Amino acid sequence: MARIVQKFGGTSVGDIDRIKNVAEKVKAEVARGNEVAVVVSAMAGVTNQLVGYCDSIAPLYEAREYDAVVASGEQVTSGLLAMALQADGVNARSWQGWQIPMRTDDVHGKARILDIDPAELDTRLKRGEVAVVAGFQGVSPQGRIATLGRGGSDTSAVALAAALGADRCDIYTDVDGVYTSDPRIVRSARKLDKITYEEMLEMASLGTKVLQTRSVEMAMKHGVRVQVLSSFEDVPGTLVVDEGEIVEQEVVSGIAYTRDEAKITLVKVADEPGVAAAIFGPLADAAINVDMIVQNVSEDGKSTDMTFTVGRSDLDRAVEVLQQRQDQLGHDYLLPDPNVVKVSVIGVGMRSHAGVAQTMFRTLAENGINIQVISTSEIKISVLIAEQYTELALRALHTAYGLDA
Amino acid sequence: MARIVQKFGGTSVGDIDRIKNVAEKVKAEVARGNEVAVVVSAMAGVTNQLVGYCDSIAPLYEAREYDAVVASGEQVTSGLLAMALQADGVNARSWQGWQIPMRTDDVHGKARILDIDPAELDTRLKRGEVAVVAGFQGVSPQGRIATLGRGGSDTSAVALAAALGADRCDIYTDVDGVYTSDPRIVRSARKLDKITYEEMLEMASLGTKVLQTRSVEMAMKHGVRVQVLSSFEDVPGTLVVDEGEIVEQEVVSGIAYTRDEAKITLVKVADEPGVAAAIFGPLADAAINVDMIVQNVSEDGKSTDMTFTVGRSDLDRAVEVLQQRQDQLGHDYLLPDPNVVKVSVIGVGMRSHAGVAQTMFRTLAENGINIQVISTSEIKISVLIAEQYTELALRALHTAYGLDA
Repeated sequence: MARIVQKFGGTSVGDIDRIKNVAEKVKAEVARGNEVAVVVSAMAGVTNQLVGYCDSIAPLYEAREYDAVVASGEQVTSGLLAMALQADGVNARSWQGWQIPMRTDDVHGKARILDIDPAELDTRLKRGEVAVVAGFQGVSPQGRIATLGRGGSDTSAVALAAALGADRCDIYTDVDGVYTSDPRIVRSARKLDKITYEEMLEMASLGTKVLQTRSVEMAMKHGVRVQVLSSFEDVPGTLVVDEGEIVEQEVVSGIAYTRDEAKITLVKVADEPGVAAAIFGPLADAAINVDMIVQNVSEDGKSTDMTFTVGRSDLDRAVEVLQQRQDQLGHDYLLPDPNVVKVSVIGVGMRSHAGVAQTMFRTLAENGINIQVISTSEIKISVLIAEQYTELALRALHTAYGLDA
Repeated sequence: MARIVQKFGGTSVGDIDRIKNVAEKVKAEVARGNEVAVVVSAMAGVTNQLVGYCDSIAPLYEAREYDAVVASGEQVTSGLLAMALQADGVNARSWQGWQIPMRTDDVHGKARILDIDPAELDTRLKRGEVAVVAGFQGVSPQGRIATLGRGGSDTSAVALAAALGADRCDIYTDVDGVYTSDPRIVRSARKLDKITYEEMLEMASLGTKVLQTRSVEMAMKHGVRVQVLSSFEDVPGTLVVDEGEIVEQEVVSGIAYTRDEAKITLVKVADEPGVAAAIFGPLADAAINVDMIVQNVSEDGKSTDMTFTVGRSDLDRAVEVLQQRQDQLGHDYLLPDPNVVKVSVIGVGMRSHAGVAQTMFRTLAENGINIQVISTSEIKISVLIAEQYTELALRALHTAYGLDA
């Protein structure tokens, strides 16, 4: 007997028939003799509709009221799934965040879970009752409904699994696992049986939108075994686990990419102490995150070019912030470029293997792809390239690292 | 300065523009220097959609889960109206039933309000904050969401007005008050400035669907002054008040009708002790309410005809229950008739005036309308007639009692 937390996303509960299908999956888990808690998202489209209402009422709405409005979507699904389970002969009840309670801070709209009181759920799971929990939400210290931000139901599920000491947290979604690369682009991409938290974290933050980044951080912190699998096919998914659980580790696990970044080059800024602070300070003040940064070697000892990336949706604002400070920064001009893609090679194995970066650079060069910016971490190498080479780069790298099926 | 509770129904908050319109009405009340609490229904159509989901998932759903699902509609409206008010510069926040808390019993789907803790709302109203309360719901002793039944937001509003010691409870709806009769049928019907609780209660239970019956009972019990008025026109409505507040009382205040009843006649049942119990016991066991009853004088001393009305939607079930017991009841046959209407003349003034019934009977006779059943109370006379005479009867009675504008 195991204790399992199952999480079903918006498309998995997108209509009445799909909710009934989810009930079947839950019932099957119960029939295996397991204790089951389920976390549900809002029905697909509902959250967008509710957010649309908020935007129409008042573009500068108060986040506490936004939370009261949008949290209703998961409330509906939790009740409907509990009903569907009962109709299937499964003992079940719905739980809202405030009923458990799942306590959060009061940063409404993107609250963090502070703690979950597991006592009542624990008792009920032990006597065979299925808990159907509304995802994405908890209750603030002031007793208001607080939501965790888009995709927050993954985090709800992992946090619940940690609090309940669950043996596994199954994230049901519309893909059947984590792939070595995007299968829509790389036909030979393979589904991974297992992946480490660290790799999944890089994948998640690099645009593989299978799991919310925060949920992976939380799983890693609490050692929650997470499985990503399909709501629609009955096949094993991908297990996200601690490195020690993976016996034979590949050097590279996957090739990820994101089109969410844009490049800015400041041409001929002063090459003197404090210039980086003068550039990135105002961007930080404007809540614009900067990712990759490269500073050219100064040719004349007086000026240099500075290139960096920001979120693509922040590009216009970033340009405005910097141009307002042209007098101070002293750059000749500024080159914004939204047509870039960040491609990343990820693998915990590269910690102990040399030559991984070299393979990447050589492969891209052989395909005539110019690298604009490079950044690295212990377990990944990212390069910024022109967007038009996305498919070419992904396929070539997938082959070069021996990942093809 | 007064303390006002305002209630807005589903059509009044039916879309984003209408919610903004409601915010204007609330703001105007605040601008008059009043303390304001607002109770809102779900946006028109939302509750029906949610009920539809429940019916599709499991026709025999658990009422606790039904409540979790359907209560979400008012939650959404409360958040949106709070936003709209804030955007208008009005200090406001939303309140869910469990946040106040508004405590109910655990008869889910048709719960009764047990008590409302007014402390926090009272403090906030005094400092000028508008409370936007999700109607139709409270929290059960077990901490579950409990709804009050369809139309329950009227009851929420009156209960809140009582708990907060409000000077008035304004029920905004899609009609502009209570009329002497249905203006769609009786062109000369007049809007009443005032009506007593007792009369309103008869009107509400007789099919004038302006206020939920329970809300009127509660207003009468707690002496809450209720005003019914239009969300869409800026004109005074009808005040529902204690009899003492109405200086010059008309003998008859209004002519109501309902098509919700059906007639059953049992022909030649035994005229002996216990036969009424034998008929109405099984109907009560089947949760079928019986309204009007008439028993003919026995001609032969052995058998009699028994005629009574049940809710039209219960007619088929009632017939089935009775036919199963034909051996015991001994009736020759049974005549069901759904084509009847109950017309009622209502007025607290008839307590002290003779001849009111006589006017009714004479007027109907003059118009060739046969009376099938009669029932009376202290302040109303109801007759059952063939449905085809509805319009004729209403207009003739409206004129006969001098109610025409």
